[in-house]
Amino acid sequence: MNASLSEITAGIVVIGNEILSGRTQDTNVVYIAQHLTGLGIDLQEVRIVPDTESAIIKAVNELRPLYTYIFTTGGIGSTHDDITVVSIAKAFECPLVENPEAMKILQDNYGETQYDSVRRRMALMPDGVRLINNPVYKCPSFQIENVFVLAGLPLIMHDMFQSILPRLKRGRPIFSCSVTSSLLEHVITDALSEIQDAHPQLSIGSYPFHEANRHGTSFVVRGTNRDDLTKAIDDLAAMVRSFGAEPIVDC
Amino acid sequence: MNASLSEITAGIVVIGNEILSGRTQDTNVVYIAQHLTGLGIDLQEVRIVPDTESAIIKAVNELRPLYTYIFTTGGIGSTHDDITVVSIAKAFECPLVENPEAMKILQDNYGETQYDSVRRRMALMPDGVRLINNPVYKCPSFQIENVFVLAGLPLIMHDMFQSILPRLKRGRPIFSCSVTSSLLEHVITDALSEIQDAHPQLSIGSYPFHEANRHGTSFVVRGTNRDDLTKAIDDLAAMVRSFGAEPIVDC
Repeated sequence: MNASLSEITAGIVVIGNEILSGRTQDTNVVYIAQHLTGLGIDLQEVRIVPDTESAIIKAVNELRPLYTYIFTTGGIGSTHDDITVVSIAKAFECPLVENPEAMKILQDNYGETQYDSVRRRMALMPDGVRLINNPVYKCPSFQIENVFVLAGLPLIMHDMFQSILPRLKRGRPIFSCSVTSSLLEHVITDALSEIQDAHPQLSIGSYPFHEANRHGTSFVVRGTNRDDLTKAIDDLAAMVRSFGAEPIVDC
Repeated sequence: MNASLSEITAGIVVIGNEILSGRTQDTNVVYIAQHLTGLGIDLQEVRIVPDTESAIIKAVNELRPLYTYIFTTGGIGSTHDDITVVSIAKAFECPLVENPEAMKILQDNYGETQYDSVRRRMALMPDGVRLINNPVYKCPSFQIENVFVLAGLPLIMHDMFQSILPRLKRGRPIFSCSVTSSLLEHVITDALSEIQDAHPQLSIGSYPFHEANRHGTSFVVRGTNRDDLTKAIDDLAAMVRSFGAEPIVDC
């Protein structure tokens, strides 16, 4: 199935040299992806780009007209390599201004003495944005139009993401079930294709696994109608049995 | 530093609904990224796209003129959702033909009886490609111009990637060292910026960590000249001490 499972779509822009150098294993994509799936929002594309203005501007401006929501992660700290905010402002051709609400949050949390020039810079945001709360560091980020600017540090990103959930439109929930068997993908290729053809409204994926002690294939069915899903799972289980193997259904 | 660390660059296209739905944590990007860094090849962009022809064609055609090498992962099995090969052929406007060398490998490994219509389809590739060996499943993939078509299953992808290493041009090795301290990023922002300015040929990243028992910041310095790197690390360690903390150097 090629069509999107939901009319509400999303893209992610991961910003960070540390991901592209292989120093850090990204875990933000899978976190956001799982939550979006639960909300009935179809994640359609992810881009991982370096900490350079041109790359961030290009990715954000190419993706934001394509999808309902864009989430960026990374590059919102105070140091020289944190250039997400200035890049987003340039992407929207929007001047950076001291956000009064952000200034108040920073002043309230840090007081006069700790509200120094660095923290003051953290209140610089494109004009007219809506804040995103940052419970850990008390240093808010923001949403501009359909773009949500989130932290890269997973702990902080999770809190920020949870705080924006009420702002997101939800699609029909996307349900997922799987059938796992010891059959090799090659054996069931044609039979599986027939089952996909019989259920065009569902997305059926075939995922071989090959580990030290076991190998086989998992079939993952995704869709918005539970009855359709149940029928496809029954068909898949019957197919596995017809090849002499035992299906393990996870629904 | 905004410039690339190496004149040899790369992009990755991860193909797979299972990554975008959050079912699977991708680990192929970090594997390829680490190896490219070791080869002096600068990974500049990653795109994760669904199992749809249009998305694969768009990503491959947008990226292949931009970077020295493109690696795709995923979607090269035999089932209906494995559409990478046909999409790559369309991206290059190149007809799919039975690759004689691939047919021979499949026939030799599976014999007449097991060389069925499904396996025969696995020999379909764009015309004139160079094969990539697949030691696990004996089913080769291919390189077309600067695009390397790799498996999604990590075990197989690793073997394929190792087998293409001799084909890749290498850049100057990119060295990396880090200094970790208990200082918060906000404290060292201005001092760190001065150190980056003093070492424009190096890329200095600042990565705060915030865990249950400890928090602080790691500074990661990357560059192609070891002497430059050593000087910057010395400067960073001195900076950390000047703020009353102890630097932990990892070189």
